[in-house]
Amino acid sequence: MAHFTVKNRVEFHQTDLAGIVHFSEYFRYFESAEHAMFRSLGTSVHPHGVDSGWPRVSCSFDYHRPLRFEDEFEVRIEIKQIGNSSLTLACEIHLLTKDKSAQESLVAKGESTSVHCRKSPEGPMKKQPIPASLRTTLEELLANPPS
Amino acid sequence: MAHFTVKNRVEFHQTDLAGIVHFSEYFRYFESAEHAMFRSLGTSVHPHGVDSGWPRVSCSFDYHRPLRFEDEFEVRIEIKQIGNSSLTLACEIHLLTKDKSAQESLVAKGESTSVHCRKSPEGPMKKQPIPASLRTTLEELLANPPS
Amino acid sequence: MAHFTVKNRVEFHQTDLAGIVHFSEYFRYFESAEHAMFRSLGTSVHPHGVDSGWPRVSCSFDYHRPLRFEDEFEVRIEIKQIGNSSLTLACEIHLLTKDKSAQESLVAKGESTSVHCRKSPEGPMKKQPIPASLRTTLEELLANPPS
Amino acid sequence: MAHFTVKNRVEFHQTDLAGIVHFSEYFRYFESAEHAMFRSLGTSVHPHGVDSGWPRVSCSFDYHRPLRFEDEFEVRIEIKQIGNSSLTLACEIHLLTKDKSAQESLVAKGESTSVHCRKSPEGPMKKQPIPASLRTTLEELLANPPS
Repeated sequence: MAHFTVKNRVEFHQTDLAGIVHFSEYFRYFESAEHAMFRSLGTSVHPHGVDSGWPRVSCSFDYHRPLRFEDEFEVRIEIKQIGNSSLTLACEIHLLTKDKSAQESLVAKGESTSVHCRKSPEGPMKKQPIPASLRTTLEELLANPPS
Repeated sequence: MAHFTVKNRVEFHQTDLAGIVHFSEYFRYFESAEHAMFRSLGTSVHPHGVDSGWPRVSCSFDYHRPLRFEDEFEVRIEIKQIGNSSLTLACEIHLLTKDKSAQESLVAKGESTSVHCRKSPEGPMKKQPIPASLRTTLEELLANPPS
Repeated sequence: MAHFTVKNRVEFHQTDLAGIVHFSEYFRYFESAEHAMFRSLGTSVHPHGVDSGWPRVSCSFDYHRPLRFEDEFEVRIEIKQIGNSSLTLACEIHLLTKDKSAQESLVAKGESTSVHCRKSPEGPMKKQPIPASLRTTLEELLANPPS
Repeated sequence: MAHFTVKNRVEFHQTDLAGIVHFSEYFRYFESAEHAMFRSLGTSVHPHGVDSGWPRVSCSFDYHRPLRFEDEFEVRIEIKQIGNSSLTLACEIHLLTKDKSAQESLVAKGESTSVHCRKSPEGPMKKQPIPASLRTTLEELLANPPS
């Protein structure tokens, strides 16, 4: 089950000497898909000129099989929980094999929690409730995942 | 409690538009310290000319406070478990404040499990027992952490 | 004039604390477009199971205006020279503004030279002539740029 | 001839599937050394709470031989020109071989020009003269390189 899905492809600089994608890159694939989900909802995690953001509180990945240079893969995001200020997402990364008869294969599973914050000038970031309109949009997506 | 400790400093490219270190960079700080620990034991995770490696099975971080450009920090690694093929490490990242009277502050806590593998030519990586001499070295470090 | 063009979008982790894309990321945008050009020609810079590659001999960028988070841009590649073993490409990066009436704007101009090499087992990379079929394909593209 | 020198070591994530350091990483090695030079002069390229910076105008590298995982290397910076607002630096990267009798080897040569800018709120960055005290410090270093 996924509330948002996006395709991507492995770039050369994301591989390491073991010939596979470095494990730290998966966190960027996840975030990139999360930001695309925000855009698909007509908003951005970081609107220009607005001093708010979504710093990460925790993030994890389990790795099941490697990705290699130029592999095409799908990032599937599931909304797990919409808190007062926080948003918890799960993520699955699946290899898109060229052999159409082959089953797609699970590459990695992750989870992330971010907190909506407002930045005061020179000061630290402070937790803020998720804006009402964004909350409504996220709750509608949670209730009605695309089929 | 730490079995290995190393200092590091935030580089410019590791920050993002929120003015803080991007969350994906912590996984590189962790790995960099892990590799320094291997070097301190007289070995390497990836000896030249040897087709073995330590692909990551899982990795996670909880974030407590941000790091900023040029902040100095300490990465502390604790050996949690030495399996037949796997190695589980915990990691704490602490800010080294310039104010000597201030307490060091916890920035992030992480955990990682890697598996020792051998790479067959053109084939997939296969789980291999941790080499006996490395196992001995790791177990000695586990039993006798530096004070 | 461009022999190959591809669109891209700025990711969050590519920005730095100045709020703009870090200058090192442009080299990755360039390379990513170069590899897409190879794919569009039915090949890859690094075919699986083949010990050849295209290590870079030189690379440069001049920066004209910044890119910011979520900016959409176009990478245009021009083939400058096809040597015996070497390939020299020029690159322009243009901002794709949302305001349709606005002119596209030049962000950066770069140039790169790579050399086709074969890797001997455990040994260094050695210069090799560009394979004949790839040479023919590149020369046809050079002679007949897409309009 | 070098006005500033710093040692570094290749990290795992900086390598790519060709088994060598990705060419884009050299720009980060260069910048990291430049920032260490600023710190050695008692300042920072990006002091906390000050809206100024040094956006890059141009940057280039020529590559002579590869760097591999865990290689130790030296980054040597030479001040080429101190303009009204701009600073041009040259950079050489040398491998530090473990064989003490071996000569150090040139890995790469680069050049970079940055411009001192002030950032207006929400507006673009504007060129600013290099602050007088920093100019004096840089000119002294240029006139009296460490031997």
